[in-house]
Amino acid sequence: MSYPRAADLELIPFELGSPSSCGSFELTPGLARHDGALYGGTGAAASVLAMEAATQRDALWVVTQFIAQAHVGETVEVDVDTLAMGGRIAQLQVTAHVGDRTVFCALGATAHPRPDGLTGQYLPMPRVSPPDDSGPMPFGPGSSEGREMAFSRRLEFRQATFVGEPPPGSLALWARLHGIDELTRVGVAYLADMVPAAVARAAGKLGAGFSLDNSLRFADVRPTDWILLDLRGELASNGYGHGSFTGWTPDGALVATGSQTASMVHLFDADELDQWRSATVTRPPRREP
Amino acid sequence: MSYPRAADLELIPFELGSPSSCGSFELTPGLARHDGALYGGTGAAASVLAMEAATQRDALWVVTQFIAQAHVGETVEVDVDTLAMGGRIAQLQVTAHVGDRTVFCALGATAHPRPDGLTGQYLPMPRVSPPDDSGPMPFGPGSSEGREMAFSRRLEFRQATFVGEPPPGSLALWARLHGIDELTRVGVAYLADMVPAAVARAAGKLGAGFSLDNSLRFADVRPTDWILLDLRGELASNGYGHGSFTGWTPDGALVATGSQTASMVHLFDADELDQWRSATVTRPPRREP
Repeated sequence: MSYPRAADLELIPFELGSPSSCGSFELTPGLARHDGALYGGTGAAASVLAMEAATQRDALWVVTQFIAQAHVGETVEVDVDTLAMGGRIAQLQVTAHVGDRTVFCALGATAHPRPDGLTGQYLPMPRVSPPDDSGPMPFGPGSSEGREMAFSRRLEFRQATFVGEPPPGSLALWARLHGIDELTRVGVAYLADMVPAAVARAAGKLGAGFSLDNSLRFADVRPTDWILLDLRGELASNGYGHGSFTGWTPDGALVATGSQTASMVHLFDADELDQWRSATVTRPPRREP
Repeated sequence: MSYPRAADLELIPFELGSPSSCGSFELTPGLARHDGALYGGTGAAASVLAMEAATQRDALWVVTQFIAQAHVGETVEVDVDTLAMGGRIAQLQVTAHVGDRTVFCALGATAHPRPDGLTGQYLPMPRVSPPDDSGPMPFGPGSSEGREMAFSRRLEFRQATFVGEPPPGSLALWARLHGIDELTRVGVAYLADMVPAAVARAAGKLGAGFSLDNSLRFADVRPTDWILLDLRGELASNGYGHGSFTGWTPDGALVATGSQTASMVHLFDADELDQWRSATVTRPPRREP
């Protein structure tokens, strides 16, 4: 199997350089937010793609830090530096820039499987409604008015209902990519930028805030259409929120975990939503830190 | 309040350079593993210390990637690069090296509190036995034979018992630092390098494996002696394990969360423990990736 996978390139038309430790992609509207700025999931996905392509190994863990904005039409150049290259594990650093502006950077590792290495899953899948019985989110890319916006980015989200009492701070979303048959690690990274919304929900608010980072850990990603993101808003302190997620195939395989920290600045109460809906359909711009 | 805090310097005698974005510390036996190599918690703690000292702001999140070894007697030089400096949030990169060997590196952010910013805790504290009713671990730094080894590093661990059914994949440890009264973010980073042990436990094994990284997210850390590390071994895939933890003060404040990926290579069954105990008291050496 070689990297990048066909499904990765369908999502991000990444042009590999020579050597394959560098590459670039154009920020198209389909990879950007509604306001034309880089969508966080695109940055995380590009980091995973670049690490796997440079080493021809599976991504184990990747944390992407969002530094500055890129805008539709700009070309993002992505460089992978090898910090350590072992027989199995490669340890890597990614820097993505537009000209001399660093847009995001990442640390992480890729690895060849260890034959007979420890394999197991130690958490049970949460019991939630299946995708077909799950409805839209009240706000954001999974909502009715957000559907077109999300669709342009190939994202589809549905809010699942827990069987029994929902765990504290939880938000369960079914997520999939339109028009891409195989969900790869790159695809999971693209879908999983939803922790800040879970922190807002846990606080009884709507909205999100902006992600400072996206940290992902991967198992073998099996062929799947939908993935369940079982998100937890864990805590907020002085305006900064932290949360995590586990990612599940419909048949119960845990394929990824992750966590994010966000600046929680775009929050509002549910009763403000109608007001907001009637005033504008533009998402508030993402502020600089 | 200025950084580094007195308690930080008691733990790691970090010599700040001029400018304060660089500094160094000598790897003493008290900051090393039994075999004289860098203890992972020391690396994570030094990353947090260096970021806070360089920016005079509280660490929000810090991920440290372990690249190569350092040994007792060597001086580790730590440089902080500023990737973005906002009015509140600073985004940073850390590189730690001995000569031209990169030992660890880190990404993360520090921030000034946002007045009236969102503050809240959305998870309940797990119900476990208090420190005084919690016993030693069967293996490792919290065990009887590990106590002296751990004590030289100022670490104390006790294994807590869950009230009722333990959550799947869980290992709950009370942890504290000897001779240091105030538990800071740096102290939490030093204590929290225990996720690989939880992955082994979740798999029904003893031992640990070596950490590839240590990812931490912080709330306000309140004055506390003990901290409860509620660890989860989440999954292992082809020899690589992932897990997470939440960190709690005894009175129920969630002060930190974290996750790690590890290469799960030093595992054995409980019935091998007696054999191992009689054969040697030396920990197996940490293998290179």
